[in-house]
Amino acid sequence: MSSIRDISKATGLSIGTISRYINNSGYVSKESAEKIKKAIKELDYVPNENARAIFKNRSNLIGIVVSSLSNPFFAEMAMRLEEKAFKKGYGVILFTTNDDAEKEREALKLLKGYRVRGIITTRTQLKDVMANLKMPVISFETEVNNEIITVSADNFKGGQLAFNHLMDKGCQNILHIRGPKNFEASELRYEGFKSEAKKHNKNFDIIRFDSDFHVSYNLEKNIGDKDITKYDGIFVFNDIAAVLILRYLLERGVKIPEETKVIGFDNSYMGALLYPSLTTIEQSVDGISSKCIDLLVDLIEGKEVKATRFYDPVKLIQREST
Amino acid sequence: MSSIRDISKATGLSIGTISRYINNSGYVSKESAEKIKKAIKELDYVPNENARAIFKNRSNLIGIVVSSLSNPFFAEMAMRLEEKAFKKGYGVILFTTNDDAEKEREALKLLKGYRVRGIITTRTQLKDVMANLKMPVISFETEVNNEIITVSADNFKGGQLAFNHLMDKGCQNILHIRGPKNFEASELRYEGFKSEAKKHNKNFDIIRFDSDFHVSYNLEKNIGDKDITKYDGIFVFNDIAAVLILRYLLERGVKIPEETKVIGFDNSYMGALLYPSLTTIEQSVDGISSKCIDLLVDLIEGKEVKATRFYDPVKLIQREST
Repeated sequence: MSSIRDISKATGLSIGTISRYINNSGYVSKESAEKIKKAIKELDYVPNENARAIFKNRSNLIGIVVSSLSNPFFAEMAMRLEEKAFKKGYGVILFTTNDDAEKEREALKLLKGYRVRGIITTRTQLKDVMANLKMPVISFETEVNNEIITVSADNFKGGQLAFNHLMDKGCQNILHIRGPKNFEASELRYEGFKSEAKKHNKNFDIIRFDSDFHVSYNLEKNIGDKDITKYDGIFVFNDIAAVLILRYLLERGVKIPEETKVIGFDNSYMGALLYPSLTTIEQSVDGISSKCIDLLVDLIEGKEVKATRFYDPVKLIQREST
Repeated sequence: MSSIRDISKATGLSIGTISRYINNSGYVSKESAEKIKKAIKELDYVPNENARAIFKNRSNLIGIVVSSLSNPFFAEMAMRLEEKAFKKGYGVILFTTNDDAEKEREALKLLKGYRVRGIITTRTQLKDVMANLKMPVISFETEVNNEIITVSADNFKGGQLAFNHLMDKGCQNILHIRGPKNFEASELRYEGFKSEAKKHNKNFDIIRFDSDFHVSYNLEKNIGDKDITKYDGIFVFNDIAAVLILRYLLERGVKIPEETKVIGFDNSYMGALLYPSLTTIEQSVDGISSKCIDLLVDLIEGKEVKATRFYDPVKLIQREST
């Protein structure tokens, strides 16, 4: 890897002159500029971004901490975040936590060490650490405190839409597969679902899952004693868990949607590819990713951001499973 | 963000002394060490990794360039690479290219600028650039040249296994969904499949797809005039494309596996969750990711790596679709 020193050697010019040329930060004679340009090309020199970072005590990197790329929603979100950051001139350091708080703690510490300009976390479990990062931070889904910006889908509203859709479809005997306690987003989906049920004076049963994608390894244990084939309407807290429920029902000969209607949450790209395809509540991965990056860059650039809560609109995507 | 200068101010000690303490690189009196330790804690100081990077003209970051996280195989691979890099003390800068050569070119240039210690690419389209990166590089799937290490599944062998499995299942009328021309891995799967067909003196039809995950947007156009419901055995070049084919057939009332048997390639986690679940040729995402990280770290540490081609073993995973 060639350095600024190599260019100095090749051109006989001082490091100061070359630095001024590269950073466009002062006078360089036309003749010297030509020499430097030629040497840069011949030596295949690429400016050391870390040098710029130390000079400014910052980098043009941002940190992204996601729970898992086995959940297609988060996989797509990580990709969109990278694409949108790239378009704004930022590179992305990625950490995946598998919802492990210790890994998240280490990731946040390392990102601080790398002097990233800002951090986006998803489903964080470290509110205390997040609150004290002293740098631009956006939290997806988890509400850290009153000051830190949270972006999320309107999960409560989504739960309401899900209940009303099952009502519209004439479901009488309803089950909700509820997410783990520490997933704030799925708790809000449950609250919204429950509030509409109350309005309609309807009861529904609940099964709580202890994870989403990991559930595939012990689905029976999570379902427990309940016979879930007897319900005619099931709302599942996210799409990846809904895929598991669909398979479970189809395997047992349940006709979808004739006998049981299933609705998920996310509108991750997988739902459309299944057969039957999955009805779901869409949270726009593109809209949410744009919001996260735009807000983070605003914070990085010192722009004032007045609100601290952003709720991206949700909508019902009806497909074959209801 | 507090800096080494803040610690100097707080303790009254020189930057040199503090630097020696932090980097454990020379004598610091016990009394000074105590003062520094206390200040680090109070000021929540985290060493500037970029400063270490410029000092050494390198970082402890590596670059990962993946084609897309909408393909569950690559999503899982990106996650495993991050996890394994993390365990070896490296952070990951991620770029997704969507198989766009220009984005890949820009990504490789930026990674060079960040002075990453090494780069892992998947399905690269820039052999010339890769060949001249002058740093530790591992290519997944694409053979760059004789010197650059390529890690891949044994794709040829996988194609052979797929053909023989369809034979074992008694298929007579066989179709192969072939990947885009520039996916070297799927071309090798085709070659393996063809070589076994030749041994058995069997013909098979071919439909070529122009992408994998993007195909969902224009599946009909990719399938063209062919009636794919008439085949009793279909080998698809990867799992995500196989999911699309499964849906296409099921939607048209084809009974899987009774009327048509479908086999994919990858063993991405999605295949097991579908109904019917997908028979596939496994390329071990965990084994491949370990190999990529282990080899890259060997190169970074200057260890001698004798071979330049690593073929991870493949195996048939039979599920419900055959």
